Amino acid sequence: MRRDNLDNADGRQRVVIEGVLPEIDCGRFPIKRTVGESVSVLADVFADGHDVVTTVLKYRHSSAQDWLEIPMEALAEDRWKATFAIAEVGEYSYTIEAWIDVFATWRRDLEKKFKADIDVKVELLAGAELLEAAASQASGEHADELRSAASRMRPENPIPVAAKVTIAMSSRMRELMETHGERHFLSRYEKELHVMAEPVLARFSAWYEMFPRSASPVPGRHGTFKDCEALLPKIADMGFDILYFPPIHPVGSSYRKGKNNSLKPQPGEPGSPWAIGASEGGHKSILSELGTLEDFKNLVSKARQQGLEIALDIAFQCSPDHPYVREQPEWFRKRPDGTVQYAENPPKKYQDIYPLNFESENWKALWEELKSVFEFWMEQGVKVFRVDNPHTKSLYFWEWCISELKKKDPGLIFLAEAFTRRRIMYRLAKAGFTQSYNYFPWRNAKQELTEYMTELTKTQIAEYFRPSLWPNTPDIITQYLQYGGRAAFMSRLVLASTLGASYGIYGPAFEFAENQPREPGSEEYLNSEKFEIRQWDWKAQGTLRELIKRVNQIRKENPALHTNESLEFHEVENQNLIAYSKMTPGSENLILCVVNLDPHHTQSGWLLLPLKEWGLDPTDNLQFHDLITDARFLWSGARNYVELNPQFVPAHIFRLRRFVRREQDFDYFL
Amino acid sequence: MRRDNLDNADGRQRVVIEGVLPEIDCGRFPIKRTVGESVSVLADVFADGHDVVTTVLKYRHSSAQDWLEIPMEALAEDRWKATFAIAEVGEYSYTIEAWIDVFATWRRDLEKKFKADIDVKVELLAGAELLEAAASQASGEHADELRSAASRMRPENPIPVAAKVTIAMSSRMRELMETHGERHFLSRYEKELHVMAEPVLARFSAWYEMFPRSASPVPGRHGTFKDCEALLPKIADMGFDILYFPPIHPVGSSYRKGKNNSLKPQPGEPGSPWAIGASEGGHKSILSELGTLEDFKNLVSKARQQGLEIALDIAFQCSPDHPYVREQPEWFRKRPDGTVQYAENPPKKYQDIYPLNFESENWKALWEELKSVFEFWMEQGVKVFRVDNPHTKSLYFWEWCISELKKKDPGLIFLAEAFTRRRIMYRLAKAGFTQSYNYFPWRNAKQELTEYMTELTKTQIAEYFRPSLWPNTPDIITQYLQYGGRAAFMSRLVLASTLGASYGIYGPAFEFAENQPREPGSEEYLNSEKFEIRQWDWKAQGTLRELIKRVNQIRKENPALHTNESLEFHEVENQNLIAYSKMTPGSENLILCVVNLDPHHTQSGWLLLPLKEWGLDPTDNLQFHDLITDARFLWSGARNYVELNPQFVPAHIFRLRRFVRREQDFDYFL
Repeated sequence: MRRDNLDNADGRQRVVIEGVLPEIDCGRFPIKRTVGESVSVLADVFADGHDVVTTVLKYRHSSAQDWLEIPMEALAEDRWKATFAIAEVGEYSYTIEAWIDVFATWRRDLEKKFKADIDVKVELLAGAELLEAAASQASGEHADELRSAASRMRPENPIPVAAKVTIAMSSRMRELMETHGERHFLSRYEKELHVMAEPVLARFSAWYEMFPRSASPVPGRHGTFKDCEALLPKIADMGFDILYFPPIHPVGSSYRKGKNNSLKPQPGEPGSPWAIGASEGGHKSILSELGTLEDFKNLVSKARQQGLEIALDIAFQCSPDHPYVREQPEWFRKRPDGTVQYAENPPKKYQDIYPLNFESENWKALWEELKSVFEFWMEQGVKVFRVDNPHTKSLYFWEWCISELKKKDPGLIFLAEAFTRRRIMYRLAKAGFTQSYNYFPWRNAKQELTEYMTELTKTQIAEYFRPSLWPNTPDIITQYLQYGGRAAFMSRLVLASTLGASYGIYGPAFEFAENQPREPGSEEYLNSEKFEIRQWDWKAQGTLRELIKRVNQIRKENPALHTNESLEFHEVENQNLIAYSKMTPGSENLILCVVNLDPHHTQSGWLLLPLKEWGLDPTDNLQFHDLITDARFLWSGARNYVELNPQFVPAHIFRLRRFVRREQDFDYFL
Repeated sequence: MRRDNLDNADGRQRVVIEGVLPEIDCGRFPIKRTVGESVSVLADVFADGHDVVTTVLKYRHSSAQDWLEIPMEALAEDRWKATFAIAEVGEYSYTIEAWIDVFATWRRDLEKKFKADIDVKVELLAGAELLEAAASQASGEHADELRSAASRMRPENPIPVAAKVTIAMSSRMRELMETHGERHFLSRYEKELHVMAEPVLARFSAWYEMFPRSASPVPGRHGTFKDCEALLPKIADMGFDILYFPPIHPVGSSYRKGKNNSLKPQPGEPGSPWAIGASEGGHKSILSELGTLEDFKNLVSKARQQGLEIALDIAFQCSPDHPYVREQPEWFRKRPDGTVQYAENPPKKYQDIYPLNFESENWKALWEELKSVFEFWMEQGVKVFRVDNPHTKSLYFWEWCISELKKKDPGLIFLAEAFTRRRIMYRLAKAGFTQSYNYFPWRNAKQELTEYMTELTKTQIAEYFRPSLWPNTPDIITQYLQYGGRAAFMSRLVLASTLGASYGIYGPAFEFAENQPREPGSEEYLNSEKFEIRQWDWKAQGTLRELIKRVNQIRKENPALHTNESLEFHEVENQNLIAYSKMTPGSENLILCVVNLDPHHTQSGWLLLPLKEWGLDPTDNLQFHDLITDARFLWSGARNYVELNPQFVPAHIFRLRRFVRREQDFDYFL
């Protein structure tokens, strides 16, 4: 309530509501939650003087007419709190109302005066009037009850004052007055804040990326959706939730790239799937070598039967052969010589790619068309999208597009490939992206990992930004993986899958711990699948598949690993060992990870655990059960020795087993 | 720019502006500055992709038509900064504009391509078109210059490409394009933010409180404004800026309080000046014993001639005899028995005081009347008000009232006597109070002082809350002062006047180090001036007057002490010694204080100074000049010994004297 113009205000509202959390950018953006999570709302609520203030949290799902209401609890120093649960996907709103609670103020003062032996006749009369006013707002039995209490409190009623005070102080009167008492000059928080409520998969997901064209069991043959179908059981068995394909559209032939990004491809080379569009079609078409639309729909449905969602890669860029170039030339920039502007990062030129021009005069049609690309694939059953380079398209476009799509299906999931500057990455999340790639691939040292994961999980950023941790992608084979070999792959897998409730791998290359760069210093793969078809031996033994499967199984079985908010790092007296834990509320399920970051040497050190904060008795014996190796460690006290050999498994994923049987537990001791 | 409705937006605006600081409660409240200070504005500004963004800060005084503009400087990670100066009192607004800088982007890419030996013919043509477009927005010489450069860059012009590139890259072209180039799909920050610009006195002020009725030199005679006039030279000589009087209005006789808050006053006792209003008048009247309105105006003007502003105490409460009670009964609460509700803090009753009812149906008239009280005294020349218990009146009333009054005179100063809960105290500051009482009186230990002053000076609170530090008031003689004697008064004086750019004392009682409470455990003065007239010996020797005068002189002469923002605490290896510094930018004027918090014993310890952060060479000899005692200490290195005897002076106020003469400085060494 502002006071610029007295005519538009009721100056008798005295309660102030401010400092509301969570609130992103003054309410400009929603916070994010998944079904089953809750929202704890905090606010500063107070009034002048000493009257009692009552505060309620109001919330509703967008499909509901009426607001639901929860009383807020007063914490210290005028800070209030209440929590509501997210029961379904869609949009929730929340706000706060507060008022001077006249009845509660009156009761508080009555009690003090009565205890101090002050005459409270007039006070009781005032109380009777409050009850009567409430009675006139109530009906039936409640109204009768209030009137009867009021009449007994009136001076003319002969019952003793102490009895009158007892009536006034009864919990029944408090209850009735909470229901029917006047909300005296109610103040309402000036904003309604919003929650984007999403499916659990938005928060907890394991992604497996593969190129469908490499799915063929026959060397030299282009893979198909049908080949992918045959691989579904293997991928499902590994415990993944999402199977993600690079673009599946016709590939341009102009300036087509050859093996290892060569500008001079050999005839028959397939080109990069990200050079989207050819005479056969663009973003709504399927590369004919992969199969038909029917094949694709079939695959989506077969995958879902096995617990896998198919994720498509939406890359809004065009090869020179894309139908848009011909049909919608105004969506591309022209150079002064009349040619179309290709992508460039001066002095480098990418003549196989035409960027879309978001400053086109015809931007509205462009926005609508791009949205319709998502809609097309939604109609084919796709619910999960990985968006390529979203930071090179208008940030406002994404906000609009995702919001429009979520109106149609609030269960959609969008993963932003936002390898870009921090603030743009976060803005994309605010604009609606469900999950995001991030700097995890390049955070390898203990301090780097600790600082970065703390930024992502312990600050306001966690309200809207959900990291998906990828050790590798078709674009990224990090130097850590290049030089660390198999042990590095194992430790990065454990880090990604336990630090992050969501994580992913570029699958076949990861399983085989493929680590050769195109050239020294490069993070590009040698013989990258981006430019050629590969065959993978899906029956090979000794790959990392068993560890991947184990880790995914551990994730599924331990709810502590389904969120990031409880992540805490712990002290280990060795810079090469990192330790952290996650737990469910009340530490019912508690997972402790220790990872050796040195892929070459055995590392050991003393680990310090916050047993008291975990609600444990430091003198008890505690069993830490390593869920990777099934080994069980009996530890006593907060300081324990750990040792990890990278040639074996460079990580522990412990589950705390609280109860350790002792001789007293046997029958013959009883 | 939101994207809910495409028809109302230009989707081609690609620049995002967010994370703007300072911004209080989403721009709901202004920040505060005084004339001569500046506002440093920070923002996150970025766009999708890789184009160059240009950002400007726009600001204006409310009296100006046009916005002024300052280019913002790009710091790291998309953070931008610019600073504007506050030149006059009133209200300033500021906001931010940013756009894709097409010319700068083009220049950046041209340079890269040219250096990589790429053919830039088409690029030069594109640049020529940009220059021509700008020329059409310019006129006269500028237009000619732009057109001529464009024509030289065109392909048909035979000058070498290198020469064309030189033209394009010239600083003259950059300058002309900054002036005339198109601001491509400009984005403007969605809010205009505000600054309450106030006089220097709002930030830097020393207050002296006295009861005018105790100003008489003749024992037993009621003091008058004329008596006060005679004391002005003494108070001005002590170096104070503001002379503050408790209420000067007629005092009620109903339930009048006697000496030491007695409920049974003797005939002729004067009562409490805060029991305002009698048949002669209320808040716009003067107690006849003090003199006439003419006397008062005369005093205000005499005081101003001596550099003193008279501050009045505005206490919005009424004695039962106040004319409002009779004339505006609807401004008071009624009890059900028809009597007027007196003030109470159950079970305590204050029957001499009727609070005003801010929930009155006639609240608009009440607000207007209360505002007119300030206006009445403004007409008599008063510019400074101390407001009694503002936290027991509607917070929204203050926001409206101060804002309306500041429209008439932006130079007004309001000191809030907000001894209340933290968030209410801060809200009053946001609502417009210039300065505020605070918890300083009860922060005595080193850690308490450090934490509290850090909260007040190093957090966002400092943008709107200006503490005034008072060691004592007529309501507060703290236990520290009661038990610490003269040494405690001295150390609290130094702390108040150097930790706080604004401070005050309840003067006569402080000068005489009066420290007897009414009863043990009480913070009320024995024989408090609130309830009786006192005579003070204004000629007495050996009071604290000389120290007070010295400290005020030090404050005036050292600009470091005129603000709080540079306050830093330093390590001393003794819990009883506190050390801190303030400095002007560039540490031109640097004041270092060390205070012994133990009023009973000599304390000593090693002090650690951040010489490097101060831009000093730790190997140099540094002279620290104690401005209280005039002693000079030659220190070398960061660690130095300090010792303070509370029986002498329990504090150092050092000024750093940088240059220490050495033998080499004498002629005969040259």
